[in-house]
Parts: sequence; structure tokens; C-alpha cells
Amino acid sequence: MLTTSRFFHSPWDLQLQSGAAFGPFTLAYETYGELNADRSNAILVCHAWSGDAHLAGHYAPDDDKPGWWDDAVGPGKAFDTDRYFIICSNVLGGCSGSTGPASIDPKTGKPYGLTFPMLTIPDMVDAQRMLLDHLGIDTLLSVAGGSMGGMQALQWTVSYPNKVRSTIVLASTARLSPQTIALNEVPRQAIYADPNWNHGDYYGPDRTPPNAGLAVARMIGHITFLSDESMREKFGRRLRTSGRYGYTFDTEFEVESYLRYRGESFTKRFDANSFLYLSKAMDYFDMSYGLPSLAHAFRNVTARFLVLSYTSDWLYPSWQSKELVRALLQNGIDVTYVDIDSNYGHDAFLLETDRLAELARDFLRRA
Amino acid sequence: MLTTSRFFHSPWDLQLQSGAAFGPFTLAYETYGELNADRSNAILVCHAWSGDAHLAGHYAPDDDKPGWWDDAVGPGKAFDTDRYFIICSNVLGGCSGSTGPASIDPKTGKPYGLTFPMLTIPDMVDAQRMLLDHLGIDTLLSVAGGSMGGMQALQWTVSYPNKVRSTIVLASTARLSPQTIALNEVPRQAIYADPNWNHGDYYGPDRTPPNAGLAVARMIGHITFLSDESMREKFGRRLRTSGRYGYTFDTEFEVESYLRYRGESFTKRFDANSFLYLSKAMDYFDMSYGLPSLAHAFRNVTARFLVLSYTSDWLYPSWQSKELVRALLQNGIDVTYVDIDSNYGHDAFLLETDRLAELARDFLRRA
Repeated sequence: MLTTSRFFHSPWDLQLQSGAAFGPFTLAYETYGELNADRSNAILVCHAWSGDAHLAGHYAPDDDKPGWWDDAVGPGKAFDTDRYFIICSNVLGGCSGSTGPASIDPKTGKPYGLTFPMLTIPDMVDAQRMLLDHLGIDTLLSVAGGSMGGMQALQWTVSYPNKVRSTIVLASTARLSPQTIALNEVPRQAIYADPNWNHGDYYGPDRTPPNAGLAVARMIGHITFLSDESMREKFGRRLRTSGRYGYTFDTEFEVESYLRYRGESFTKRFDANSFLYLSKAMDYFDMSYGLPSLAHAFRNVTARFLVLSYTSDWLYPSWQSKELVRALLQNGIDVTYVDIDSNYGHDAFLLETDRLAELARDFLRRA
Repeated sequence: MLTTSRFFHSPWDLQLQSGAAFGPFTLAYETYGELNADRSNAILVCHAWSGDAHLAGHYAPDDDKPGWWDDAVGPGKAFDTDRYFIICSNVLGGCSGSTGPASIDPKTGKPYGLTFPMLTIPDMVDAQRMLLDHLGIDTLLSVAGGSMGGMQALQWTVSYPNKVRSTIVLASTARLSPQTIALNEVPRQAIYADPNWNHGDYYGPDRTPPNAGLAVARMIGHITFLSDESMREKFGRRLRTSGRYGYTFDTEFEVESYLRYRGESFTKRFDANSFLYLSKAMDYFDMSYGLPSLAHAFRNVTARFLVLSYTSDWLYPSWQSKELVRALLQNGIDVTYVDIDSNYGHDAFLLETDRLAELARDFLRRA
């Protein structure tokens, strides 16, 4: 399946939750499959913290790296491109084609850095809504996502209750727990601690980005994406080399090598300031914020829900999906909930695509 | 209860697991209660990663901060100083009075830094054995500890099987899991990433220690000491100030404020290089290293065991204590095991002192 990067340039400003207005902005996006005649088969897939618009497929016949959820999106897959028109856009605040802190502020001619406005999940959703207007799509058959993508999917049902017929929420939550805020704050501190971060002002050919801090930040993330069980299966206590301890500070255990590699390679594709802004958007995510209860948040919702959690996911543990499901049921909303038995930890939402395909296929046909 | 810092200076070198010899060295230690006439009531308590020899009591009548386990050590407490002679020493490699990387190398007149030898848990135990020889104690009634202290307690039963009559192991493991190695490696990377670390060479009045990196390292630790549940109880999503989001990168959530405070205050009392060395000693801890099985490690052990784990401890989860208990039972060793129901996470071993007192009191009387 071949795909192309596309760009949407907002015709007007976005009114942000913080009170500020922001614009103009660009969203990078990709689409897969064909929009049908009555424009009723559109599904928006929202990406997670470090994701991008390149959901599936290849950019060219000789491009050997497919999009991030290629196992779930394509002909005959969970999100079947023979039936549905799938859209994925890089979030506002991101660094993969959409306007974010690394973009040039047209007012100054310089990168925004920390002058970029603080964003929330509802802001990201409002920006996506403008993109859909541009594509001539009034109503989504479904909006789906895992982790931070699940937060956007949930927010869609509340921000635009009449524009979403169903939603698929994987490994996510209706409000970040203090443990997850903590697991976002420490990576932020790792970036702040890097002198190259320089209060977010590090762009330009003569500057060095805070790669050391960003790598540490990402390593923390990778611990939370796996599980105790999956780390035992994947690495155990295996040593990289001779099988005997070296008694040095060199990388010895395979799990160390994995983390260092993941941390370092992340710095080649991600902007530290984007990382910070997206982490804050998640921390602020609390659908009960300012309301008497979480159930109250869903009082006008009409969408049907498929909610999936994974037994070994300790970043967004199953109890959080159950809390969400209870709040939906209190509103009489049609919910299918499955707590999928998996050892893969938080990564399970990306990897357990067979189970997802079984569940999503029927769910989407009924939608 | 008043106590005093004491210092033991080793009369000879220590033969390390790595093959190197190391010495001379000093161990800081404290004692509580009285050694009885036949020297049969001595209990060694081993401290965890960031602990020290100041186990309990006060240094002066106006000293308002007691030792780190004062709730468990004193007259009538779990470790009853009316009955037992309790010893606690700062581990070799530490930074609270014992010889460590911040100490002056007598051969060069300069701090060791990274020329300090790599240590293991067995090395720490061998150093403690020299201290006990110096104190005229041949056999311990018990050796006890939580977390890294539990590793030392376990190692005692194997390194000196005829010198230990019982052991109490709390919230610990017989071998570090890859998840825990990962949770040690990322803090190390945070320290390495701090330019002030300078490959461990940062001592002296004109130098700045790597406090930013050490603070990040410690924050990661504090997440692992708590549990998802205890964080919800302790902090929830509470904001420090107005109750409304500020939409800035300032410290807003109480959990952020807690972590920043803990990270910063740690840098005032701990040496980054010690932190690194102790983390590696834990990573190397695997009682089955080079053996056909974990059970094999305990084949000569004669001590009785009290093993405690805590249901919400995800740093040293209950399955690790169960694995240890199975290995002990395979050797016909007398073990009492309790998986204590607690929300406090790994910190439970320090906090659940009532349960500990109930269990330890009878266990020690039978020893």
C-alpha cells in the first residue's frame, strides 16, 4: 500500500483551552482507502505521544519501513482500507510535519521554542476537526487511538458528540493518574537538566539540541511501554558479550543495550520541546476537570464505544479503562469492553493486532 | 535512644569478586542495645541503596531527626534493643562515613572517583564480616534488611553459612530482574548525561557535582518506591495552587512538587558516584550466577528465614520473594513467608512496622 504525506493549512485561528488563540497552523496527514459517495466511511486514527501521520503503508516501492500501525491498517486488516477511508494526522504541537515548537513563528521568523502556546488534548481534537472540514467529512464513522491517541478519541466523542458514530479506545484513560504524571514529569526534568535545552531555545545550525536529556527521557518511556514479564521474556539477565560480568560501567546487560539504543535513536526523529508540550497535554487530560464526576463528562455522548485494556499494561492499567467504562455505562452508552490478556505491557495496543482485528471488524460493521 | 557514629578501619585488604584487592577501608557503623555475655544476641541490619549506618535513635537530645528505621529499632520494637545488640554499618562504596568513590585514595592523595573498584553485594558482606570480627562477634543471631539490605542479608546466609542463625529479608530478591536493571540503568544515564559528572571526576572546592543528573536519577527512584495506589492516595491529581490549570511548565501538580523536592534534597546528602557503584552492585546481584539453579545457591545454608513481600511493591514484586522461597524450600530450609497486603509499594518495608514487629518478634525469639 503506497501513501503520500499531505498538508492542511488552517484557514483560521484555533481558540485554545488556555484562552489564547493560535494560528495559522499546518497539520501533516495521510489517508488510506477511498471515501465513499455519501462520505460515511471515514475513520480518524489518532497517534500516541511519539507517533506521526504515517500510520501505514510505504512512501515508495523501495521504502522498507512501513507506517507505525501497518499491522492494523490495510486491506483486510482491523482497519480495512477496502471498506473504510482512514485518516491520520500528526497532532498540533508535534514535530513530524504539523506546526509545533520547532516550527517558524511567522510573527518573528524564528522557531517558537517555549513561546509556543500550551496545548491540551481538546485543542488537538479541534485542530483535527478543521482538517476534517477541509476534507469535506461531516461525520466520522469512528475515531480510534491508543494511549494519547485514545485520549483524543475519547475527547472527540465529548467535543463533537454529533460528529462521531463510534470510538475505539485502546490502552488509555479518561484522566491521567498521578503515577503517569510522575512518569511524564521525570522525563521533562531530564530534558530541563540538559544544558543544551537552554529553556527551549536550541534550534539552528550553530546549536546542539538536548539529545542527552531527550534520550534519558525516552528510556524512561521505554521501561513503561514494556512489562516486567515482557522484559523477562525479551532480555532476561542476558549479557551482551562473554556471559561473564565485566565489572565496569560499560553496557553489559542486553536490557541496557536496548534502552541506550532506543534513547539515542529517538533523538534523531523527535524534537525535545514537542516531547515536553505533548507530555503536558496528557498531564492536563482529565475529562472530569471542573465537573461533578467523570460520568458527567459523557452526558451528551451518542457514540458507541469499544474499550480495550491489556492485563500487563501498568502505564494505563486496566482499572483506568474500567473506571471509564463505568462512567459510560452510567450514561446508558453502548460499550463493549475487553481486558485483553497480554504480556506485552503498554506496547500490547500496537502489537496485539489479531485480537484487535477480531473485535474491531464486527464493531465497525455495526457502527 | 542516643547513639554515636563509630568507625572501623580494616586491618587488611578485601579480596573482591572482580578479582581485585581493595584496602585499607573504613566502615562507619552504629550499635544499639548491649551485647550479652556469650555474644549470642547480635543482629546485623543492612541498609538499602540510599541508607546509612544511622539506623535508629538520635545523636543528641536536641537532634530531632531519628535514624532511618527508628520505628522498627528500639526498646520493645520489632528489633528490640532491650534484648538484642543491633549493628548497622554503611556499606562499602557508600558515602556516609564508609570508604567510597568520594574518599581519598591514599595512593594518590585524591578522591577515587571512577578508579574506585567495582563492588558486589558479596564484597559488601565480606567487609561487614571484618567489622564483626573486630567487634568480637563470631555468630549473628540474625541478619536483616530490606531491598538492597535484603540482598546483603541473603548473601550472608550463603557467604557465611555457619555464622548466621536466621535472616529476615524484606521486599527483596535473589536476583535482579531486567526491569529493575532497567530502572537502575536509566538513573545512571541521567548522571552520565550531566556534564558536571565529568566521568566521575567532580570533587573539590572548585568543582560542581552532577546535582541535576542525580536529582533526575533519584526522582525515578521515588516513582518506584511508591505504588499506583499510594500515589493516588497521597497526591491524586491535586494542584499546588489555585485549583485551576496554569498552562505553563511550572510545577503544578502536587506529585511533581514532591518529586522535585525529593530529587533536590537527595543531592545534598548523597554522592553521585556512590549512587552509580551501588546500582551496579545490585545489577550484578544474582545468587544463581554461574550455578545450575537458584536452589543450588542455598545448598549449604543452615539459617532459618523470614521472607516478607508487599502486595503493591512493583520494584521487587512478590513473585520474586516466592521464587526465593521456592529455592529455599527445595533445600529443606525452614522458611516463614508472608506476602503483606499493603498499598505503600516498595516503601512498605520501611512503613509497615507493626506487621513486621508481630512477625519478627516471634521469629527472633525462636532463633
